[in-house]
Order: sequence, then C-alpha cells, then structure tokens
Amino acid sequence: MGGGTSIGQGFDAHRFAPDGAGRELWMAGLRWDGQGEGVEGDSDGDVAVHALIDALLSAAGLGDIGTLFGVGEDSLGAGMHGLPMLERTADHLRAHGFVPASASVCVIGNRPRIGARRRQAEEALSAAAGCRVSLTATTTDRMGFTGRGEGVAAIASALVGNPSGIPGAAL
Amino acid sequence: MGGGTSIGQGFDAHRFAPDGAGRELWMAGLRWDGQGEGVEGDSDGDVAVHALIDALLSAAGLGDIGTLFGVGEDSLGAGMHGLPMLERTADHLRAHGFVPASASVCVIGNRPRIGARRRQAEEALSAAAGCRVSLTATTTDRMGFTGRGEGVAAIASALVGNPSGIPGAAL
Amino acid sequence: MGGGTSIGQGFDAHRFAPDGAGRELWMAGLRWDGQGEGVEGDSDGDVAVHALIDALLSAAGLGDIGTLFGVGEDSLGAGMHGLPMLERTADHLRAHGFVPASASVCVIGNRPRIGARRRQAEEALSAAAGCRVSLTATTTDRMGFTGRGEGVAAIASALVGNPSGIPGAAL
Repeated sequence: MGGGTSIGQGFDAHRFAPDGAGRELWMAGLRWDGQGEGVEGDSDGDVAVHALIDALLSAAGLGDIGTLFGVGEDSLGAGMHGLPMLERTADHLRAHGFVPASASVCVIGNRPRIGARRRQAEEALSAAAGCRVSLTATTTDRMGFTGRGEGVAAIASALVGNPSGIPGAAL
Repeated sequence: MGGGTSIGQGFDAHRFAPDGAGRELWMAGLRWDGQGEGVEGDSDGDVAVHALIDALLSAAGLGDIGTLFGVGEDSLGAGMHGLPMLERTADHLRAHGFVPASASVCVIGNRPRIGARRRQAEEALSAAAGCRVSLTATTTDRMGFTGRGEGVAAIASALVGNPSGIPGAAL
Repeated sequence: MGGGTSIGQGFDAHRFAPDGAGRELWMAGLRWDGQGEGVEGDSDGDVAVHALIDALLSAAGLGDIGTLFGVGEDSLGAGMHGLPMLERTADHLRAHGFVPASASVCVIGNRPRIGARRRQAEEALSAAAGCRVSLTATTTDRMGFTGRGEGVAAIASALVGNPSGIPGAAL
C-alpha cells in the first residue's frame, strides 16, 4: 500500500456514577462542573476522547485504546485525563509515520450540555490531536440508555495521512 | 492548516409520535405516506437529514445544527423540511470556503422502509447537498429503542473540501 | 462529478440466539469458538462484515447489502460467510470503476472478545476487501441491548476511490 489517507471509526460508552458518588464529569477534554456526576470506571470516562483515540489508532492500523494504554486498573489511562491521552496517541501515530489529518466526534447523551463550551473543547482537542477536531452533541429524546440518563456515548471518525507510504504496522 | 479534506460525524434520534397523532413521517428529504406516524418535536424530525447536516457542519468546523438553525420552537428548522435545511447548510459551507465532497447516512429503525425509494431519496439529498449522498437503512432485530419502534436514529459521515486552504472558522 | 474519494457509513445489529441453540459465532470474518452462541437469522450474522459492506457500497453509491445480496431466506448472503461476501462486494465495486481505499469497523458488544485475534481478523478482512481494514471493539458498560448481552452491533466507515471519474451509478 502506498501513501494516502485512511479512515478510522471509534465508539465508546460509559455509565454515569450514582448521585452522590462525587465523581468529576470529564468530557471532550474538559471538566464540566455543576452538570451532575461523572462516569464509573478506572479512567475519567471521557467517551469523546476515547472514541477519538480509537478512530485515530484505527485509521493508522495501530490497534485501539487498549493496545496503547492497557486495560483496567493497571492501564496508563487510569491515571490520565483525556487531553494527555490524545496527545500521546498523536505522538504514537507520528512515530509510526502517520499524520492526524482531521477528526470529528458526536457526543450522545443528556449531559454535559456542550453548546456553550463547544469552541473551547474543540480548541483543546485540536491542539492535543494535532489536527482540527470537531465536536457535536445530541440527545436521544429520552429513549435508550443515553435518553434515560444511565450513561453517555460517543461516535468518532478520523482521517490520517501516511505521507511516507510506509504502513505503520510494518515498523 | 492548508487546503485539504476534512471529515465530519453526525448522529440524531427522534421519538415517534403516538398512534393517531396525525404527524407526517419525513425521512431523508421525502414524505413517507402509509408508513405510520411521524416523530414528535418542533421540526419534521428527519433524522437522516439532521445527522447529515451535523456531519457536514462538523467536517467544516462550523458548529452543529443548533448553531445554524437555532434550537426548539424558535428555531428556523421548526418550519423547514429536510431538503431546504440541507440546501442552506451547503450554502453556509460554501460561503465559508468549503465544498461538500461526499456524504453517507444510515437510518436505523423499523420504518419507513427505505428500499423502494432509496434512489429517489439519494437524488434529492444529493441535489440539496451539492455532492453525492448515499443512503442505507437497517433494523436492530427488535432490540433497543429503535427495535421496539419507539423511535428512529441515523448515523452520518461526510467529507468536505477546503480548496482555498483558508479555514472557514477564521472567516 | 469527477474522480475523487467518497465516504460511506454502515451499521448493523443482530440478536444473539438463545443458549443451547448451537449457532456458530462469526464475527469480523472469523469463527469464535467457546465464546457463546452466535446470532439469530438467515446469514451467519457477522455484523462487522455487514456494516463494512454497507459502508463500501454506500461510498460507491451502489445501494446496500440487500441490493447486492438480496434479503431474507432467499438472499445469496444466507449461505455465505463474511469474507466471501466482502470479496464479492469489493469485486462489485471494482466492476463499477471504484477502488476500496480504506475501511474501519467498531464492534459494540460483550462478546466475542476481539483483542487477542484482532490482527488475524484485520488481515483476513483486509485481504477480502482489497484495502486495509481496521477493527476495534468496545462494550457499553452493561447498558442497552449490547450491554445486556441481547445482541451485538457494529459501526463502519469506508473510503472509496473513483480513479476514472466515472460515477459507478451511471454504468
């Protein structure tokens, strides 16, 4: 395969912690205060960033977030917030001859309410990923696990360039 | 960032109105008669078009459907059907130096049954968006809110060119 | 429309057969032994491949999996596993002047556990599709139909080139 552009798809979903758990809510690289509990789990549960990381790694054929950060309590990601994870992902791509070109993520859920801070989140995500990252958000009209407020999901896609024409998987 | 191609991801879901509500069913730019109630809400609830609009705006870094059309009763979209909304979106992109290049949307739900009118819908969507738009449809085997017929969802992706190399967000 | 690259989006979901049904579990072109029942239905229920096929056909404007393979008991796909279906799809694209360029699919569900055989699956999918195909997998934290183990879903995206500049739909 020669040089060119490849595509990656990512998805992630996490369950919100119960009221009173005192978990910070992190999404799209930012902390959202006053918008309820964060998610359960070992990481900060930033589904937007996790879906973007899967999309970028997948576009480069470099596995997924578990490949790069490990899984569970012992994962590197357990102690990291989204932006440094995204930076490390972009570094990993470049080290394998790939260049993040463009990415987009859609958050599906009732909260946080993205709108007012969309631009701030997009700038933070874009700086970390080294390419423009766009962020949208929508609800599911009280339907399904996102609509009932049980959790939140994100779908991401990414384009990655491979200027050298050397597939990263071969390095 | 120079000229190039960027990607956008979109998602939307709406709840069907109860039987007898008398709501027209609009999907992928067309009205579907004899296939049950339309969706609840202020707009015509065309999730295929709404997801496409989010994908196109996101690819151009121009926010989302709420940014362009407003939200709720007072939104411009409340009185508009899908095709004119999609036309306005494409005009908005071009006014910011972007060119819609390609888009695709997948409708997830029990109805309408897209197959027989897929080509008609694709032609209408493509004319409105100013690029080829493809339409697929699938069900979720009676699982989840789409499978139980509570509502319908759509996932879209789009490619947008930026021939001038001037990021639209800077205009 | 001249030559260029177009994008396609695909989605599929299938319900797992009840315990004891004795259905083989096929996913991403491979059979997964010892990971529980396969899915219900006429095909082998390989949602990863089915979503990839929809993404590829959609990127080329050539309809969807039902257009190419038919629907239900009488479909060609009823007797075919994922890899030969994917090969036939790639042949169909090339016969219409399109070249599969890149594809990515994300499996959403509790099983099979993809990780250990990801590389094997990616190699098989890439050989069948004639372009690099990446595979990721995630769960939904026990939420929704995928989280409860009722079924499994997949989201795919693809890039397709059209070197001739002749839209396939016109052939």
